[in-house]
Amino acid sequence: MSATESVMLLRLWNLLVAVSATSMAITIPLQLVLGYTPGSPLLAFDWMITILFAVDILVHIARPLVLQEQPSQLRTLTLNYLKGWGLVDAIATLPWYWLFGVPLLDLLRFAKLLRVAQLLHQRRRGAVQYNPIFRLSRFVFWFGLSAHWLACGWLALHTLATDKPEMTQYLHALYWCVTTLTTVGYGDVTPTTDAQKVYTMVVMVLGVGVYGYVIGNVANLLANIDLAKAHYLSTMERLTTFMKYRHIPPPLQQRVYDYYTYLWENRLGYDESAVLSELPPTLRTEVSLLLKRDFIEKVPFLKGASYELIRELALELRPVVYTPGDFIVHAGEIGRHMYFISHGTVEVIAADAKTVYGTLRDGDFFGEIALLYSQPRTASVRALDYCDLYTLDKDTFTHAISRYPEFATHMQNMAQKRREEQPPDSPNRPDTVQ
Amino acid sequence: MSATESVMLLRLWNLLVAVSATSMAITIPLQLVLGYTPGSPLLAFDWMITILFAVDILVHIARPLVLQEQPSQLRTLTLNYLKGWGLVDAIATLPWYWLFGVPLLDLLRFAKLLRVAQLLHQRRRGAVQYNPIFRLSRFVFWFGLSAHWLACGWLALHTLATDKPEMTQYLHALYWCVTTLTTVGYGDVTPTTDAQKVYTMVVMVLGVGVYGYVIGNVANLLANIDLAKAHYLSTMERLTTFMKYRHIPPPLQQRVYDYYTYLWENRLGYDESAVLSELPPTLRTEVSLLLKRDFIEKVPFLKGASYELIRELALELRPVVYTPGDFIVHAGEIGRHMYFISHGTVEVIAADAKTVYGTLRDGDFFGEIALLYSQPRTASVRALDYCDLYTLDKDTFTHAISRYPEFATHMQNMAQKRREEQPPDSPNRPDTVQ
Amino acid sequence: MSATESVMLLRLWNLLVAVSATSMAITIPLQLVLGYTPGSPLLAFDWMITILFAVDILVHIARPLVLQEQPSQLRTLTLNYLKGWGLVDAIATLPWYWLFGVPLLDLLRFAKLLRVAQLLHQRRRGAVQYNPIFRLSRFVFWFGLSAHWLACGWLALHTLATDKPEMTQYLHALYWCVTTLTTVGYGDVTPTTDAQKVYTMVVMVLGVGVYGYVIGNVANLLANIDLAKAHYLSTMERLTTFMKYRHIPPPLQQRVYDYYTYLWENRLGYDESAVLSELPPTLRTEVSLLLKRDFIEKVPFLKGASYELIRELALELRPVVYTPGDFIVHAGEIGRHMYFISHGTVEVIAADAKTVYGTLRDGDFFGEIALLYSQPRTASVRALDYCDLYTLDKDTFTHAISRYPEFATHMQNMAQKRREEQPPDSPNRPDTVQ
Amino acid sequence: MSATESVMLLRLWNLLVAVSATSMAITIPLQLVLGYTPGSPLLAFDWMITILFAVDILVHIARPLVLQEQPSQLRTLTLNYLKGWGLVDAIATLPWYWLFGVPLLDLLRFAKLLRVAQLLHQRRRGAVQYNPIFRLSRFVFWFGLSAHWLACGWLALHTLATDKPEMTQYLHALYWCVTTLTTVGYGDVTPTTDAQKVYTMVVMVLGVGVYGYVIGNVANLLANIDLAKAHYLSTMERLTTFMKYRHIPPPLQQRVYDYYTYLWENRLGYDESAVLSELPPTLRTEVSLLLKRDFIEKVPFLKGASYELIRELALELRPVVYTPGDFIVHAGEIGRHMYFISHGTVEVIAADAKTVYGTLRDGDFFGEIALLYSQPRTASVRALDYCDLYTLDKDTFTHAISRYPEFATHMQNMAQKRREEQPPDSPNRPDTVQ
Repeated sequence: MSATESVMLLRLWNLLVAVSATSMAITIPLQLVLGYTPGSPLLAFDWMITILFAVDILVHIARPLVLQEQPSQLRTLTLNYLKGWGLVDAIATLPWYWLFGVPLLDLLRFAKLLRVAQLLHQRRRGAVQYNPIFRLSRFVFWFGLSAHWLACGWLALHTLATDKPEMTQYLHALYWCVTTLTTVGYGDVTPTTDAQKVYTMVVMVLGVGVYGYVIGNVANLLANIDLAKAHYLSTMERLTTFMKYRHIPPPLQQRVYDYYTYLWENRLGYDESAVLSELPPTLRTEVSLLLKRDFIEKVPFLKGASYELIRELALELRPVVYTPGDFIVHAGEIGRHMYFISHGTVEVIAADAKTVYGTLRDGDFFGEIALLYSQPRTASVRALDYCDLYTLDKDTFTHAISRYPEFATHMQNMAQKRREEQPPDSPNRPDTVQ
Repeated sequence: MSATESVMLLRLWNLLVAVSATSMAITIPLQLVLGYTPGSPLLAFDWMITILFAVDILVHIARPLVLQEQPSQLRTLTLNYLKGWGLVDAIATLPWYWLFGVPLLDLLRFAKLLRVAQLLHQRRRGAVQYNPIFRLSRFVFWFGLSAHWLACGWLALHTLATDKPEMTQYLHALYWCVTTLTTVGYGDVTPTTDAQKVYTMVVMVLGVGVYGYVIGNVANLLANIDLAKAHYLSTMERLTTFMKYRHIPPPLQQRVYDYYTYLWENRLGYDESAVLSELPPTLRTEVSLLLKRDFIEKVPFLKGASYELIRELALELRPVVYTPGDFIVHAGEIGRHMYFISHGTVEVIAADAKTVYGTLRDGDFFGEIALLYSQPRTASVRALDYCDLYTLDKDTFTHAISRYPEFATHMQNMAQKRREEQPPDSPNRPDTVQ
Repeated sequence: MSATESVMLLRLWNLLVAVSATSMAITIPLQLVLGYTPGSPLLAFDWMITILFAVDILVHIARPLVLQEQPSQLRTLTLNYLKGWGLVDAIATLPWYWLFGVPLLDLLRFAKLLRVAQLLHQRRRGAVQYNPIFRLSRFVFWFGLSAHWLACGWLALHTLATDKPEMTQYLHALYWCVTTLTTVGYGDVTPTTDAQKVYTMVVMVLGVGVYGYVIGNVANLLANIDLAKAHYLSTMERLTTFMKYRHIPPPLQQRVYDYYTYLWENRLGYDESAVLSELPPTLRTEVSLLLKRDFIEKVPFLKGASYELIRELALELRPVVYTPGDFIVHAGEIGRHMYFISHGTVEVIAADAKTVYGTLRDGDFFGEIALLYSQPRTASVRALDYCDLYTLDKDTFTHAISRYPEFATHMQNMAQKRREEQPPDSPNRPDTVQ
Repeated sequence: MSATESVMLLRLWNLLVAVSATSMAITIPLQLVLGYTPGSPLLAFDWMITILFAVDILVHIARPLVLQEQPSQLRTLTLNYLKGWGLVDAIATLPWYWLFGVPLLDLLRFAKLLRVAQLLHQRRRGAVQYNPIFRLSRFVFWFGLSAHWLACGWLALHTLATDKPEMTQYLHALYWCVTTLTTVGYGDVTPTTDAQKVYTMVVMVLGVGVYGYVIGNVANLLANIDLAKAHYLSTMERLTTFMKYRHIPPPLQQRVYDYYTYLWENRLGYDESAVLSELPPTLRTEVSLLLKRDFIEKVPFLKGASYELIRELALELRPVVYTPGDFIVHAGEIGRHMYFISHGTVEVIAADAKTVYGTLRDGDFFGEIALLYSQPRTASVRALDYCDLYTLDKDTFTHAISRYPEFATHMQNMAQKRREEQPPDSPNRPDTVQ
């Protein structure tokens, strides 16, 4: 048996122990209030648990062997266990009621819950625990277990009727408990003695606390199930109110909605840069590279580029979206960015808004002439469909030009070729460029 | 029949199908618990729905024809429908109870709800869905439908009384359900059997969840109905507390309130720039131009200006409000902005605070001398009533001067004319200007 | 009678009308369900209101005369009133029940509530409406009025018992209504007929809505009663957690608490700069001057300074607090600020940490040498008690020196005098200054 | 007895008085509704309190003597007390019922609660009051006391049954009160007379208010018990959603979780810099020094450094964490930071990614060559295990070099030594460095 198989087997065993401990947490209070009747199936279960817990102690002692830890530590690990959690395990294993006949002593076996909680705490890493549905389930689990314990407490304060089945009586108590905790309070089951009234008051005050906690969390948890959606909706609501108040005409409103719908459907409305900025530098670079991996493969000259250049561009390229018909660049403007097309088609138009020089597609780039020669845009560029672009600002461009000769050469060649193709429609006025 | 008319007709048909599916979602559970009585009006309704759903299948098959799609795709679209949602539609159309006599099978017709939901999902774009009132209605609708289903469940667990009308018994069940879900819990209708108690517990726990969700959302939704107002109120509360604590004298407090009341009544308290900055560049420019369209028409020299200049100014002009009596510019100060009057009257006063050089009105501008000649303000300017101004900062001004000769010429002429009118009351000290 | 007295009288009259309209909103539904008994005091009240409302119409017609508006507008204003709100007023004045004998028609008189709401809306400016206690009262008022209306509705659906006083029966209905709206739901008063059950369901669902709104707002309103305190507490909680986790020793923790307690007691924990930045420029200047007025009067050379200099300093000075024993300035450091003492005592110490050059008090300043001569601090300065200082950063200082000769002269004289008093304990190293 | 002992004794006495006043606030309403029976233990308690309060007045008069205040102020302090709170104390001390036989007069003794509240208010400084558990306890205390008072009010509106023990009747009233306040509302105890109904309505409306406050605060308070954890969880949830949507491969996801888990376990997820920036300059320096104290002791050359250098570095060093295998520095990159190792091991690798120059450990530093000689990184550095580093940016580094000769010398020596060890694998290109 390999080490990995051993680990998997150990995990399964731990899961079995966790389920058993939880079942015990349900059955022991039931036995306490309904009485330990010799022939009941609960008793058989009690003995099964005792055996299983005993085996669990052996498993924990044998654990270092199974995991093939270094022999030098074996003795220490075993001793540590026996002095620490081993004691807790032993207490939880003993069938206290059968040893001493005192029902309350059986509560000592709840110690196993502590042990299980500690095991869970050790394996905390991973995505599951941040999943809102997992947290909602955990909450429902604890609410259910508490209701069960409180119902058993209610039964303990009543003399049991002998003519009704025990299950019906327990269900009646659980029904009272849920009625009270949810503050519904039908009033068909009410306390009569002083002790019952005090108990009821405690449950009611607990109920308010639970309720406050639920209400403060349920909305929060439900919202987190689709966090991105919630953020998107709040942005749209703000925009809708603003546009309604300022009488923006419906066609323009529709274009705004189209833009956000496209963004939502393709990027889920996430502000990539904000999320990335929370990561440490190394992870930020790797995640950036991954997110832009499709795009990088499309740009021909990046395929042969050095890793340093790709890494720098991946970190500095900012995503931006244009809707069909949008002007991305106006001829004659001062250029502060160059653009790479990740997805979509754009057409390059002369300043007279008539002559079409050509179209550019996925993996092409444009706007480098204005940055290279510090001159106004030589042509306009218009989006023909939804365009996912990446922009590179002037500082990063200049820096890349000076650092990476390959990048400089490629940009200069491309710019040279394009200037020859397009007659310069606006005179060079480098003096006006800021 | 034109294509637009066909689309409108299709939408009306879809609406009819949606209403029918919802009605069915109400009637089927009722029939399940009250029994299918041959002569009841519910049965006639059942058959009507069956026919309507059958027609709907035909409509979906004919849909590509009506919308005049390309013939090459017709076959594919029809096949896709028949293999996908067509199956769901067919299941929902069949009158299962009448075919097999098994009431529970009728629940299969709920499949139509899925189909309707999918149709709704396809036409998601637009302002309605971000409307808080729409979302509140949707919530009320689902709450009502759930309560109806839960009430039918309650009836299913009871033997019906033969001496009371069915409607009264259903109303009684719905009354129990609402009493429980809202946690009012009168206790005049309570469960007696074990099954009923378990069902009640489930409804109560659901009620808490619903409740938590309602409370987390109702306040939020109500707040969003007038989002701008909420933001305005919170600003005013913060200011009120601050001014009370720091003993700002009541007249000054009143001026602060006047300022915000004016802002609220004329701009609804919105920070235009913040909203605009969320839009992509192209849309931002267009919305800016629209918002400032009234103002641009007022300024004489902008009427003949080039589109580039107007676009640049629309993006860079920042709105600012002054209350009557406020000094906008103090003679002798260093100027960092020039001002365009969108609405209101200001008077130009000499540094001695007595001589009034004149008044300026909607469409006029001032403050350009200090920016052009880098000298301190040559005169003071005071608001005579509530003034909506737009400010242009020095950088944008300098940039516009160098880029747009028309703008430069106009500014220089105006400044020259004004300097000749007003004796320079403060010596040029360009050395002190930063 | 002067114009001011007339205005005051008009306001009192409006208040009387508002109270009458509210009383009517209470009595009319009562009369509808309890019946119009000829001799009851409610009838006398009914007639009183009718007369009062009739007089109110005359008052509104005469209003422009009383307020001495321009005669030219008199006719227009009166006509506008008669065609607009005058109609509403007339409808609300007529005693509909006595004219036609139809009780339900009397609900037309509720129109007066609209009129009162419109009057209230006109006079919205001022601090009262941003007061959380006012808003809480308004909420309680509407909750009470709604409960009254709902209780009347409950009575309308019941046949009244003839043996109990009407007041007891109304109280019983109100009791039912509050029990249901608060979701307490004792169940001692429950609906029996179908109509009553439907009505109860509506009230319960309304109750959930109200409840959600209350819970979303009460906490918010209570928090806003002491907004500054809430902000202060949240800062302290964050700091407490952080210091506990990072094992900051208790004496240092205590100093942090002392600092915040002093800040809270003297400034109420407000970040002055943040609040000021929300105001428009003119108001910001005036509020700044007011807040620093005590301080400005303490600094001798500011008394005779020009208004421009004082205004600029008021805007640029930043408040900062030091606790006893804190070093404000360390000899040898690079200085980036100079300090004005608003309140407190500091001592100037040589770099050897022994020689005390002297103490400075309210209105004194220090730290100007390092800014003037771009050299490291020539001496240390230590706070002797809690010190409220204002700091001036290097940019503003340089700017003020170049713009205001009076400021430059005073600073240079003071610095010269101090350098002669204190032997320069650190050599001038202007080259190392950044 | 020393001054400190006296202060401790005074505090204990004040605690005793506070407990007595609270007990009195519980017993007096009980006596009012149950009647003052001559032999009851409550009466004995009443007299005990009277004596204790009388002694408290003497203690307050003697207080200045005990605390050894200056004699000159003794008379003033005593007179102030007698005219102010002394009067309140006297009113609270008198046994009003026994003097005049009017039970209601006894409520005057509640004045002592005001006195106790004022004493508590005086000693507000310290960490306890910002503790969420303390605030939760305070809330529970006030909820309990209010419920007690409301229960006494309920008893006052009923004629007491003579056949049941008083305790049972009180418990019954308290039970009603909690049932109503928590909106459970069983309905087994309901009001019958009009007065009782009005009282019940008031309690119910109070209950909604309390409830709204509880729900708005409980979730908040519970969240604050582990504020750092809540912040950590929300970051993780945002990251999890983002990575799931963007299909980041599981191994990279795991590395992100590992990074945050390490950060959480070692720093509790706190953004140190954000917390520090809220402190005033002096405290910020001291807390920074404390937090970095372990690290400073590890770096050899800092041990002998001047206090100014250590202080400046403590303020400017920013903590950063790398996970095993992360590249901290890439050979050939432009360097903008140098690094100090606080905890962990890194290895220095040549640009060819093969040759390992050596490893660095706690207290070592690297990256200074690139900053000193403005050249690209000469070697790569990779984290071998979890590394806690501190980074120093280029500006601070340059500043420290010019200001602290000791720092400059050490850095230059180290860089010189290292350059000799490592053959320069990338040519000096200072022209490309920005």
